[in-house]
Amino acid sequence: MTLPESVNIVEVGARDGLQNEPKVSLEAKVSLIDSLSQSGLRYIEAGAFVSPKRVPQMADSDRVFSNIQRRPGIIYSALTPNVRGLEAALEARADEIAVFASASESFSQNNIHCSIAESLARFEPVIALAQQHNIKVRGYLSCVADCPYEGATSPNMVADIAKAMYDLGCYQISLGDTIGSGTPLRIANMIEAVSARVSLSDLAVHFHDTYGQALANIYQALTMGIDTIDSSIAGLGGCPYAPGASGNIATEDVIYLCHGLGIDTSVDLNTLVQASSAICKALNRVPQSKITLAQILHQ
Amino acid sequence: MTLPESVNIVEVGARDGLQNEPKVSLEAKVSLIDSLSQSGLRYIEAGAFVSPKRVPQMADSDRVFSNIQRRPGIIYSALTPNVRGLEAALEARADEIAVFASASESFSQNNIHCSIAESLARFEPVIALAQQHNIKVRGYLSCVADCPYEGATSPNMVADIAKAMYDLGCYQISLGDTIGSGTPLRIANMIEAVSARVSLSDLAVHFHDTYGQALANIYQALTMGIDTIDSSIAGLGGCPYAPGASGNIATEDVIYLCHGLGIDTSVDLNTLVQASSAICKALNRVPQSKITLAQILHQ
Repeated sequence: MTLPESVNIVEVGARDGLQNEPKVSLEAKVSLIDSLSQSGLRYIEAGAFVSPKRVPQMADSDRVFSNIQRRPGIIYSALTPNVRGLEAALEARADEIAVFASASESFSQNNIHCSIAESLARFEPVIALAQQHNIKVRGYLSCVADCPYEGATSPNMVADIAKAMYDLGCYQISLGDTIGSGTPLRIANMIEAVSARVSLSDLAVHFHDTYGQALANIYQALTMGIDTIDSSIAGLGGCPYAPGASGNIATEDVIYLCHGLGIDTSVDLNTLVQASSAICKALNRVPQSKITLAQILHQ
Repeated sequence: MTLPESVNIVEVGARDGLQNEPKVSLEAKVSLIDSLSQSGLRYIEAGAFVSPKRVPQMADSDRVFSNIQRRPGIIYSALTPNVRGLEAALEARADEIAVFASASESFSQNNIHCSIAESLARFEPVIALAQQHNIKVRGYLSCVADCPYEGATSPNMVADIAKAMYDLGCYQISLGDTIGSGTPLRIANMIEAVSARVSLSDLAVHFHDTYGQALANIYQALTMGIDTIDSSIAGLGGCPYAPGASGNIATEDVIYLCHGLGIDTSVDLNTLVQASSAICKALNRVPQSKITLAQILHQ
């Protein structure tokens, strides 16, 4: 068992979270990101430059970037599926960008309407242009445990696509259990297969908590030496129409786990809990973080 | 890592769960236990013989025991803090009984109004009488990670009290993280300390999910060879007045974890989900099981 001494948290609540929630005001988004900036987080995904028709929740990402108070040392990133998105991200002065692919052919076809190979080919001009501007590119890889259409994903398939994304120029591959159906041994097998092709230090995990397994899976990943974890403040990202349904694992709960394991995160949990409570009030939803719920009850 | 091939689930929802929920009808309790009996569970805590003034939710435990349909091979147990309770449990034909102590002196004083030593002394006549009737006695030990009054509990203290309970005649000690504040390494240290005094095969874990850590802690315990897990259908046991607050880990989520790890449980998850949905309707509360929530959303 090789627990890392410190862990980098990639806070995805303002993008991966809010894009799956009812639309909130520009002010609420800016306030959320500014609060997160004060918590000690060092990486905040602040928006996405995607079709406003398909993802209306992200339509004001340019204004989010121009209105947040940037703190030195924090990376504010944006999701950009294509060159047009990247150009908008450059204009908004995003510090990094992210692209996404799927480890499942059916999910790729159903979700982004192209094959995996086509999606990888689309990255090439995006990554080339980003590199011209000295912008680092992060890669999201979805369905690393299961696909809603195909069932279990082969760990070798995950390893192949992760390696392809890395070779294309992604400096880090974020391994997404999109369905949230993975359990620790399957996650371990997948990470083992991927780390034979891409160094552990260039991998992150991005686990959804739909089946309640995310924190056990994160613990498993930590014991293998993974030191970058994607998570979402308040567990933002669950289906907004289903009370209690959950999407991303809550950042607060990951921080609590890490601190309990003696792992440094640079993050102040109380500041996070306040940010979590505030955005949940703005969304009129119950936090999906057990830590935040427990703190609220203690008040 | 030594994962067990099979795991015994001690279903505590009808007692530890319902005693912390708004009172439900006798019919709802009997219906819950009968549904649980059909799921493949082999151990169901069905009630408690305690002061009806202090725990009105358990006042009808005698009628619960006389109205449930007992299936062969299932143990229906009752919590009995004293000889009077045991006599009532004998009359109700409980198959086993359970007693409880705390690993924290302050919690013992505040919760059961006596010292740890006094609480152990009170077990003696209870266990003696139970043994006369060939009734096995299970021991609950609370605050094995933290105490709300004293903070961290020393693993050696937990080991001492667990050993004392075992020597008094408890055939199994259920180690309770009552506050739900433990994280995997601290849980591992505690289990290691206890298992130096009481054999791993005579230990169970009983983890609350207040801080979202229970399933990661259970996974840790499983990797050490623990093969008995207490859990509560639908995560019953949270504070009823706080939506989203959670108490016991949900049985459904434990079963999903075990099956994902290739561990046999004898339990059919779909039957559990139906039982969970039904009791939550009776209680007018949202299930605290991610598995059950995910199933409901898929319907």
